[in-house]
Amino acid sequence: MIDFSLSPELEDLKARTEAFIRDVVIPYEGDPREAAHGPEDPLRRELIKKAREASLLSPHVGKDYGGLGLNMREMAVVFEAAGYSLLGPQALNCSAPDEGNMHLLEEVATETQKEQWLRPLASGEIRSCFSMTEPQGGAGSDPNMLATTARQEGNHWVIDGHKWFITGFDGAKLNIIMARTADAIERGKGATMFLIENDDPAIERVRVQDTMETSFAGGHCEIRFHGLKVTPDQVLGEIGEGYRYAQVRLAPARLTHCMRWLGAAQRAHDIASRYAVKRQAFGKPLAEHEGVGFKLADNEMDMHITRLATWRACWVMDNDGEARSESSMAKVISSEALFRVVDRCMQILGGMGVTDDTLVERLWREIRPFRIYDGPSEVHRWAIAKRIASRTRKAMA
Amino acid sequence: MIDFSLSPELEDLKARTEAFIRDVVIPYEGDPREAAHGPEDPLRRELIKKAREASLLSPHVGKDYGGLGLNMREMAVVFEAAGYSLLGPQALNCSAPDEGNMHLLEEVATETQKEQWLRPLASGEIRSCFSMTEPQGGAGSDPNMLATTARQEGNHWVIDGHKWFITGFDGAKLNIIMARTADAIERGKGATMFLIENDDPAIERVRVQDTMETSFAGGHCEIRFHGLKVTPDQVLGEIGEGYRYAQVRLAPARLTHCMRWLGAAQRAHDIASRYAVKRQAFGKPLAEHEGVGFKLADNEMDMHITRLATWRACWVMDNDGEARSESSMAKVISSEALFRVVDRCMQILGGMGVTDDTLVERLWREIRPFRIYDGPSEVHRWAIAKRIASRTRKAMA
Amino acid sequence: MIDFSLSPELEDLKARTEAFIRDVVIPYEGDPREAAHGPEDPLRRELIKKAREASLLSPHVGKDYGGLGLNMREMAVVFEAAGYSLLGPQALNCSAPDEGNMHLLEEVATETQKEQWLRPLASGEIRSCFSMTEPQGGAGSDPNMLATTARQEGNHWVIDGHKWFITGFDGAKLNIIMARTADAIERGKGATMFLIENDDPAIERVRVQDTMETSFAGGHCEIRFHGLKVTPDQVLGEIGEGYRYAQVRLAPARLTHCMRWLGAAQRAHDIASRYAVKRQAFGKPLAEHEGVGFKLADNEMDMHITRLATWRACWVMDNDGEARSESSMAKVISSEALFRVVDRCMQILGGMGVTDDTLVERLWREIRPFRIYDGPSEVHRWAIAKRIASRTRKAMA
Amino acid sequence: MIDFSLSPELEDLKARTEAFIRDVVIPYEGDPREAAHGPEDPLRRELIKKAREASLLSPHVGKDYGGLGLNMREMAVVFEAAGYSLLGPQALNCSAPDEGNMHLLEEVATETQKEQWLRPLASGEIRSCFSMTEPQGGAGSDPNMLATTARQEGNHWVIDGHKWFITGFDGAKLNIIMARTADAIERGKGATMFLIENDDPAIERVRVQDTMETSFAGGHCEIRFHGLKVTPDQVLGEIGEGYRYAQVRLAPARLTHCMRWLGAAQRAHDIASRYAVKRQAFGKPLAEHEGVGFKLADNEMDMHITRLATWRACWVMDNDGEARSESSMAKVISSEALFRVVDRCMQILGGMGVTDDTLVERLWREIRPFRIYDGPSEVHRWAIAKRIASRTRKAMA
Repeated sequence: MIDFSLSPELEDLKARTEAFIRDVVIPYEGDPREAAHGPEDPLRRELIKKAREASLLSPHVGKDYGGLGLNMREMAVVFEAAGYSLLGPQALNCSAPDEGNMHLLEEVATETQKEQWLRPLASGEIRSCFSMTEPQGGAGSDPNMLATTARQEGNHWVIDGHKWFITGFDGAKLNIIMARTADAIERGKGATMFLIENDDPAIERVRVQDTMETSFAGGHCEIRFHGLKVTPDQVLGEIGEGYRYAQVRLAPARLTHCMRWLGAAQRAHDIASRYAVKRQAFGKPLAEHEGVGFKLADNEMDMHITRLATWRACWVMDNDGEARSESSMAKVISSEALFRVVDRCMQILGGMGVTDDTLVERLWREIRPFRIYDGPSEVHRWAIAKRIASRTRKAMA
Repeated sequence: MIDFSLSPELEDLKARTEAFIRDVVIPYEGDPREAAHGPEDPLRRELIKKAREASLLSPHVGKDYGGLGLNMREMAVVFEAAGYSLLGPQALNCSAPDEGNMHLLEEVATETQKEQWLRPLASGEIRSCFSMTEPQGGAGSDPNMLATTARQEGNHWVIDGHKWFITGFDGAKLNIIMARTADAIERGKGATMFLIENDDPAIERVRVQDTMETSFAGGHCEIRFHGLKVTPDQVLGEIGEGYRYAQVRLAPARLTHCMRWLGAAQRAHDIASRYAVKRQAFGKPLAEHEGVGFKLADNEMDMHITRLATWRACWVMDNDGEARSESSMAKVISSEALFRVVDRCMQILGGMGVTDDTLVERLWREIRPFRIYDGPSEVHRWAIAKRIASRTRKAMA
Repeated sequence: MIDFSLSPELEDLKARTEAFIRDVVIPYEGDPREAAHGPEDPLRRELIKKAREASLLSPHVGKDYGGLGLNMREMAVVFEAAGYSLLGPQALNCSAPDEGNMHLLEEVATETQKEQWLRPLASGEIRSCFSMTEPQGGAGSDPNMLATTARQEGNHWVIDGHKWFITGFDGAKLNIIMARTADAIERGKGATMFLIENDDPAIERVRVQDTMETSFAGGHCEIRFHGLKVTPDQVLGEIGEGYRYAQVRLAPARLTHCMRWLGAAQRAHDIASRYAVKRQAFGKPLAEHEGVGFKLADNEMDMHITRLATWRACWVMDNDGEARSESSMAKVISSEALFRVVDRCMQILGGMGVTDDTLVERLWREIRPFRIYDGPSEVHRWAIAKRIASRTRKAMA
Repeated sequence: MIDFSLSPELEDLKARTEAFIRDVVIPYEGDPREAAHGPEDPLRRELIKKAREASLLSPHVGKDYGGLGLNMREMAVVFEAAGYSLLGPQALNCSAPDEGNMHLLEEVATETQKEQWLRPLASGEIRSCFSMTEPQGGAGSDPNMLATTARQEGNHWVIDGHKWFITGFDGAKLNIIMARTADAIERGKGATMFLIENDDPAIERVRVQDTMETSFAGGHCEIRFHGLKVTPDQVLGEIGEGYRYAQVRLAPARLTHCMRWLGAAQRAHDIASRYAVKRQAFGKPLAEHEGVGFKLADNEMDMHITRLATWRACWVMDNDGEARSESSMAKVISSEALFRVVDRCMQILGGMGVTDDTLVERLWREIRPFRIYDGPSEVHRWAIAKRIASRTRKAMA
């Protein structure tokens, strides 16, 4: 029956995560190793060490592989708390893209592959990336445009192609590559995923892409594959099922973004709220001006609907549902609502809001791409619309 | 733990309500007795008889008084289903203001008062109204402006005053009247509620108010009290506690509006969806135009956040929480989201949307006042803002 | 050179129109002859008589035919002033659809046709309607769906078809009918317009359509043509050029809606502003609450952009430009901005705003269809988008 | 009479400016001397040299001082063209804050002061800054909070205070300082402006402020005055009139921001339009998707209303009007509309939009502060609201 309570264990975990972020992680903010393309590895390792000591590492990974074994709803609560600092998800080892990659491996990989890749990922020893997006739109919103190919040569595969927005590439040991293995991609079949070690000379790092957000370890890279040889044991799951696995990865990964950015938006909201009660204008604190108070109230409502829509989609997934619509809705609602939140916070802060004197300016840049990454709002709206039309046609038949 | 499932009993009740609305109630739509100021009494009684036969009458009232004894979350599900027809809440005897009045009586009235008023209300035998709002803003958003007074004379009270927007006054037997019983209204104390039989000649019906919505039985009236005499047994609860009881009544009443209007918006959305898959423009159905599809998707999301925010506030109340912020948030979110839904539906229907060829035009008029009734969005935003400021000040202390 | 001044003559005409509306027309508001489907003819004639006496009749018609001979920019100023009362355009004889029909006749009709139809229309002696829109979308946004046909039989034409939203049909003497005269409608050719006297028994009045707006004289009707015989002298302009003439009529007609509704929105804004400075809440007038003041400011800005965009399109037309994009932009900007204005006014008025105690409730219903009539926002947005794409392609070539 | 044409001379100037930006300025974009806090001085001087050769330097300055002597409407056209490159205003020597400072000097300074400061500013030889804003809100939205003081000592003044957001401070030779010269600031009196050479050791450069925009030469600095001595000839205008002069400066300066940012938004729109006609998705160019086309159409409308509102305010000023409301409206309309434009452009570009592969990402950051600088939207809305209330009260009196 409809219930919004947290189990006592989860309340405890939430409190411990909040305390960890507040007392351990936030003091690291501003560390010079927080570089332009995400934290540098030594900082990341130091944070992970602290999280391990606090028994908070890899909340999303099964206990067999060293994680906390949380379900989606539990993750929602813990990841939101972690997101309160941009370094929090790095510390808990639950940042994109590693978090989604671990989930994918846990669901699809063989035991051998799990030992080789999932275990060191879960411990934070290595990082990974996920090579799907292509410059000409391949494997983006429209699956049929996938241009990277893996052709069979003897019992090997040879991969050629061009990818970009490969988050975390710099410094990643594992590269999960999506390539076309059939001439036509029909009904979601025809693409395959491969688990590749990134130091292969057939992988060219074209450039790092300068994006306005900077919190992903390893930044985003443009890369090319030049006749990259792959052995059969490097195939993830079954041949031709790449798009199905992409869904296995993306549906929850989309939601974990909602969770983490919700925490980040809460941070901006707290900064703006504190400023609003302190700063005077026209004879009273900003917060006592309706123009400011209404913005704070709208923030609260936008975070409220984000949390609820995310929890709802998580609950469907925890009950083995596909949550396609719920996950799309949560993604659109969250990405648009949370940007409104940080944008309002910036406005409340006035001139100071556009400087780096507070974290809000950075959060504003960090959250904006979420309306584009993992499927822009327009693609999700269209997916939702098609389901409505299809359902309506059935009801009218 | 976070859960969005419905109990099997509730699933069954929901299904039976949906079937009842579809098979029994909707055929009554367009009945000539659906008058300009809500359904006429014979139609109302006929609908109530059907609901009683279907064991769906008064879902919100305790079983002792003939209702179904649902908690708030259960009501959320059933009222939404009932709202799918504007006649549905009348049939189930859960329309405003009766529904809120029954709840108030159940919580505050003496056993004698309950027998006298709650029992016949719950059976649909009589109707009631709630006299709080005043033309000069009294007892509206700002409690201190309450101008109607009840002054003690011997062991009686004498009420003088002027009220308007007294929903359901025409035909109501019970009138619950809010009046000032102290010179100053401070910290929520100083007003009292009285249970009055409406046929007292000291109650003047000034006029019926022509509002753009027409679904409330008895319309809205402007009335005056001219030395209305009241005996001590007509006092509801304790002297001076009127504002506290108003909250007892309003917090859930606000949410039941969200529930019913959600069902109504769903109706508009279904009408627009069916039109969109049938109607052709520029060589394909409307639904295959992104401009239309995106609107349908936004509708779905707006109904989603309405439902979730409402359920959340209900859950707090079911757990004895005050849900002040949750209830304000649910009210603002719902009233604004649902108006957007019907407005989009109207736009999708094109010219037909502004005629009475479909129900959408009427729903558009019916739902708009919800952004004003029970506290306009601005007053709720301000209440939310004040809580944020107060919470922030505490955290900074 | 860029100039926003009005000529002294126009300033004078504006002032006289404002005074006429204020002193002569507004006192007629609430006249019982203001019926559910627009003012009844005796009221209309009485108003027209007053306008003739004030030398304000038919501002848009050439002086040869009894009008004031204004250009589009001059009309913009005068029609805005007229729109301040919903009866104003009726009085000045510049309501839709007559105003657009007169313009069409002035541009396209023969001298004989002008004497027969334009002269009595300009004097307000008769009314007219324009039969274009069809229930299945014909002649609406997508020209190719026009289903009404005129087939040649000897030297006559015979019209069969089905129209709806025929504004002003009841009581109109002239009916301008658009019918398909070719199998295919290509590059805007293939449809023809006819000037028909409405008392022909081959014209069936199916029903009046109940729309939420009620200010158009004669309401909107659904009609059918059953083998309506037409002689060659009843053809307007050339055979096959109906769509070109429709543009001649629609581009300015769209703008005159912007002008009139701007005046109407100003009326709502004035009502709300007066209420806001008088009504107290929380210890000060509403207008001193930022939540209300910001709404008034937004109103002012929305009316500002409406006026400017309309003037701009008028200027292009006065200089023989087609103003396709400017006219589409003015229509979308105005119809959306002005609805926001009246919606904000309603919210400011609170409960009273949803009653007929002020004119705002009616204005809110009257203005909403403008986002649909004369091409819904979506169709205009698409037309603008196609021009951007085409212009961009040329620039890149 | 209402006219939107440009004089032939202005058309020519516009075309020459557009060509200059396209052929001369844009090739400099990406020059390494475009530093984090605006272009370095050598780059600025090189651009100014080119503009002088093209007879385009200092369009806003009178011909006596080496400028083009344009009025506000002419500036609107030329500055928009200049804004198409972020380096354009630097080249034409019409960036903030110099452009506004030159205007202020031209209006208020003595001939001697003009020779000393205006002439070298107009030639681009030196730069200037304007020290008004203070960290605690002084001289920001609320004049009464001005904390910097100038106290008289003998026939000198001594300035102490703290300023921030002093745009262009680094490298500026002239510093125009606003300080309190009376105990109370009432009815706009009590503050005075001083013309100070920036190399005075009593001026401390506390730090450069890292803002998300980077196009202002010299960045923004926080500074302090420690007993800065000022001689009487350094007083600008009259003692006590600082706030009046601030209006002389700010009202047009606000509009020149609208002009320049309009050009910048047009640049983003052109980039997005080109991408939309080239890039394929789901079997057709992006521009043929309504979801994208509607955004392009909305961009066009948002730029349309920006241009019109700006021109309108300029026309009032050119006719010696105060344009207080028009200038506030133009500022709010433009700053909000233009941010929507670049935000939509970013969304259209998808992943590429959040990288520095196109200029859009930078433009998005550059334009956002305009909703805050020169009075946040909220302060202008309030100013507009107060005028509505005051006008309404008068009309009701």
